[in-house]
Amino acid sequence: MNLIILTPYDCIGGDSYRVDDNRAEHIITILKLTPGDYLEIGFVNGPQGRGRIESITDGVVSVVAEDMSTIPPVLPEINLICALPRPQTLKKVLITSAMMGVCSLHLVRANRVEKSYFQSPLIEAENQFRYLVEGLAQGKLTRLPEVIVHDRFRPFFEDFLPKLESTHKTPLLKLLADGDESNLLYTVCDGHESRIALAIGPEGGWVPFEIELMQSVGFRRFTLGRWTLRVEHAVTAALSQIELLRLRQSD
Amino acid sequence: MNLIILTPYDCIGGDSYRVDDNRAEHIITILKLTPGDYLEIGFVNGPQGRGRIESITDGVVSVVAEDMSTIPPVLPEINLICALPRPQTLKKVLITSAMMGVCSLHLVRANRVEKSYFQSPLIEAENQFRYLVEGLAQGKLTRLPEVIVHDRFRPFFEDFLPKLESTHKTPLLKLLADGDESNLLYTVCDGHESRIALAIGPEGGWVPFEIELMQSVGFRRFTLGRWTLRVEHAVTAALSQIELLRLRQSD
Repeated sequence: MNLIILTPYDCIGGDSYRVDDNRAEHIITILKLTPGDYLEIGFVNGPQGRGRIESITDGVVSVVAEDMSTIPPVLPEINLICALPRPQTLKKVLITSAMMGVCSLHLVRANRVEKSYFQSPLIEAENQFRYLVEGLAQGKLTRLPEVIVHDRFRPFFEDFLPKLESTHKTPLLKLLADGDESNLLYTVCDGHESRIALAIGPEGGWVPFEIELMQSVGFRRFTLGRWTLRVEHAVTAALSQIELLRLRQSD
Repeated sequence: MNLIILTPYDCIGGDSYRVDDNRAEHIITILKLTPGDYLEIGFVNGPQGRGRIESITDGVVSVVAEDMSTIPPVLPEINLICALPRPQTLKKVLITSAMMGVCSLHLVRANRVEKSYFQSPLIEAENQFRYLVEGLAQGKLTRLPEVIVHDRFRPFFEDFLPKLESTHKTPLLKLLADGDESNLLYTVCDGHESRIALAIGPEGGWVPFEIELMQSVGFRRFTLGRWTLRVEHAVTAALSQIELLRLRQSD
């Protein structure tokens, strides 16, 4: 936990906040702070700054927010599209998305997605929240990724995505990390693009129909490397390679 | 499990193998194979090929190896150096190392490594084996990374590493992913290097003395990006960025 993330639910009036969960435990047992000490805090979807510990009683920590004047870095817009993974993997994807500054996460139905995954409690936003906050706390970020579940494949790519694209004049670069070995990332992305949609398939991959449909709406295929990766590793790998190209351009 | 990995322990004579653990479960319940069916198999530190299922009885699967003629890809030599992480993280690092074709994994003591980590059962090779095999099975590889625990920091960098380097004439590029924002990977690595040592720090990072010592023996610092990553994500991110540069050079 590199940043203690506070939410409106923690507010007990004015600038005072109270936490009694794993954040309190972290403050007491890992950071070993005591009343009067300061710590780094951040507001969900808001600024970062420092908090002063007012009291620690029976595992409940009261914090007063001060100097909340640090605006978190504005990361380039990445819209991550994942075939809905199994719940254990989804937790990791939620954490990673928040930690690595993903702007929006779209969980879509696909041929190789088991129907039961759509019955998981993790489909509900209230159950995703703690994993997103865990990612923000690790990544020292405060912008919560928007998470949207799409229970139909074709309407997402044919209707939703064009609408998302049209919200800005800047075009959306659409990337499909599917192991096509003829294209490396740098042949489909030069690092200048400020808006990217990145699609990561299910375990077992997209079926040919899905790849064709994605290509028909402008997705460009590339390979992450000579590996067979799990979904959560493919997400990290793709975001890391995109970051390398982007930093290179801004260097 | 994209490849069923067989070890000498599974051999019951000649080309016959017997498995009764999660591999058997995978064959029966996920792949839904029956006697006479074929499946992809690989020998630890050996070739890959196909196996014919001879029998399935009470959760025990007997397989006969046939056509073991596929030589796994020879990946470039990556020697991963990690400050010994907490056991839960070490499991992930073991899996990822095997999955992504790391040649050797060196787990070293560092200032911010808790002493108790060296008492973990995971320090023992026999307890690491299942996580390495899990990684190989995911990555469709068979080469087991060599894992070595080094309980002293300075002797590893001053004595062991020079010996490792001198085993080949090819020089060893030494990289230190520590968040130095002035260097991106491509400024310290051009992708042609066939032997790399990659150092990933502990949670909280290396202390200045450690960084200075590593620099004094030739390590070059770089940043993975505008993030604060966990150890297991830093490993995947660094290997992915190196792979991108390497494939670019061989393209």
